[in-house]
Amino acid sequence: MTLTQYLADRMAKIDAELNRLVPAESVRPSTIHRAMRHSLFAGGKRIRPVLLMAAAEAIVGDAPGAVTPACSLELIHTYSLIHDDLPALDNDDFRRGVPTCHTVFGEAMAILAGDALLTRAFQVLAEADEIPAARRIELVRELAVASGTVEAMIGGQVEDLEAERQPVNADRLHYIHRSKTGALLRASVVMGGIYAGADEAAAAGLGEYGRRIGLAFQIVDDILDVTADTVTLGKTAGKDVAQGKATFPALFGLKESRRQADEHYQAALAAIEPLGEQALRLREIAERVVTRTA
Amino acid sequence: MTLTQYLADRMAKIDAELNRLVPAESVRPSTIHRAMRHSLFAGGKRIRPVLLMAAAEAIVGDAPGAVTPACSLELIHTYSLIHDDLPALDNDDFRRGVPTCHTVFGEAMAILAGDALLTRAFQVLAEADEIPAARRIELVRELAVASGTVEAMIGGQVEDLEAERQPVNADRLHYIHRSKTGALLRASVVMGGIYAGADEAAAAGLGEYGRRIGLAFQIVDDILDVTADTVTLGKTAGKDVAQGKATFPALFGLKESRRQADEHYQAALAAIEPLGEQALRLREIAERVVTRTA
Repeated sequence: MTLTQYLADRMAKIDAELNRLVPAESVRPSTIHRAMRHSLFAGGKRIRPVLLMAAAEAIVGDAPGAVTPACSLELIHTYSLIHDDLPALDNDDFRRGVPTCHTVFGEAMAILAGDALLTRAFQVLAEADEIPAARRIELVRELAVASGTVEAMIGGQVEDLEAERQPVNADRLHYIHRSKTGALLRASVVMGGIYAGADEAAAAGLGEYGRRIGLAFQIVDDILDVTADTVTLGKTAGKDVAQGKATFPALFGLKESRRQADEHYQAALAAIEPLGEQALRLREIAERVVTRTA
Repeated sequence: MTLTQYLADRMAKIDAELNRLVPAESVRPSTIHRAMRHSLFAGGKRIRPVLLMAAAEAIVGDAPGAVTPACSLELIHTYSLIHDDLPALDNDDFRRGVPTCHTVFGEAMAILAGDALLTRAFQVLAEADEIPAARRIELVRELAVASGTVEAMIGGQVEDLEAERQPVNADRLHYIHRSKTGALLRASVVMGGIYAGADEAAAAGLGEYGRRIGLAFQIVDDILDVTADTVTLGKTAGKDVAQGKATFPALFGLKESRRQADEHYQAALAAIEPLGEQALRLREIAERVVTRTA
């Protein structure tokens, strides 16, 4: 199976599971379930859940049950997009060509839909009865910490907002990168290891792999904002620069940014080298992260 | 110890534990931690955490460790207040005489502070290492379900918002009452039983007690909105009526509303009768819920 086929297969499984895990639009109150589903099924690439599944497979070979905890990551990611898009934050009307949640359902419902997806993520983990309780609670802990305020998702978003009004510097940029996007990407890989019962050495390798591809992902994101066009990107290109946001190319230049992304890529590969052949998909995904054009 | 002394003692323990469980204002990024703490320490009565502790004590007598899971309820309750107060929702500038989160920190930070408190609630449960993993994951499940959309907190808030534009009817009013406030109050009591390892019969009794006082609490809230003045209440009296919101007195009249509150109170007492003397505080709290004047 090629990587493209692998990704399509896992995405289909993730979408089916998400559909099962979120209340139907007919369930009362219908409005909130429509709002949640609008954003959840708006064309996401499911990078985080795929990473969890691929990490679990790197440990135990086959891991079909990993799709359930994987979905908790997409619920968190989607809630964060809905809230980031709100008028009080980034004020985005479209994402991947689809109107954002508040554009369709209004601000109040978008705030509540985000809250509901966030809450549902933890319910999904708690109710994953096939996973031993000790692993389930470890998954909850990992997800909560990575989504929180300390060197984590919300903390990164706060510093990103504050950076719009303050000069860019390397310390803040690194903080934003490792927190806003990096923490949850790293958690995705770590959670795959927890699900699969990885031993200490394997868990450490997965953690380092996750940290490195998280950083590479964000650097490439910054590069694409400068080099790609809006149609290819599926979101407004050049927006970071226009908003005066801290980016890697702005601080280090394009060439040095590409060099750093490649350095993280190489380090990611080295970290999972001991996992052998079963880590094939993780290697391929790392390559895709640094070579992607959108 | 009188009930008043008991409540003061437990509130002090809860406040100390909340202070321990939420990052200090000095932790980066400082703004979000100041915003979280602003609302968390703005004079709440800590009803939900006290209920969890009293329920645990009704099962095992002494339960000092219950203060940690108890705090998860206050984190959820506080997040829901911050988001409900936002301009896009209830648009409240003050709560208990204190400026609301968005009034002090702006809308963006208030949205993120709510998200962060919600996320932290699950981290607190996951990290409560003294509690066996099986009970911890059951606590996560109960909290997530009660805070969710299906006959639960967010669902109740959605129908409450929609009720402002639609005629009041008994079905919708009951849905809002049992979901918006009732679900989390009931969960508070149920979680005390989970923490303490209540057997099936005791857990059922606690669940029914929690359901009944949740309903009584909300009916009394509606009554006080009509009968109390703003100073006594600590929030704007008559606001429900002014906003055209569904309330018990509006639908059933004051006398019938009082009768129903008393009926729930009696049923709550009956449900915990088998727990005997150790349930003293639960009985006293139920009485306080129906006789309170603010």
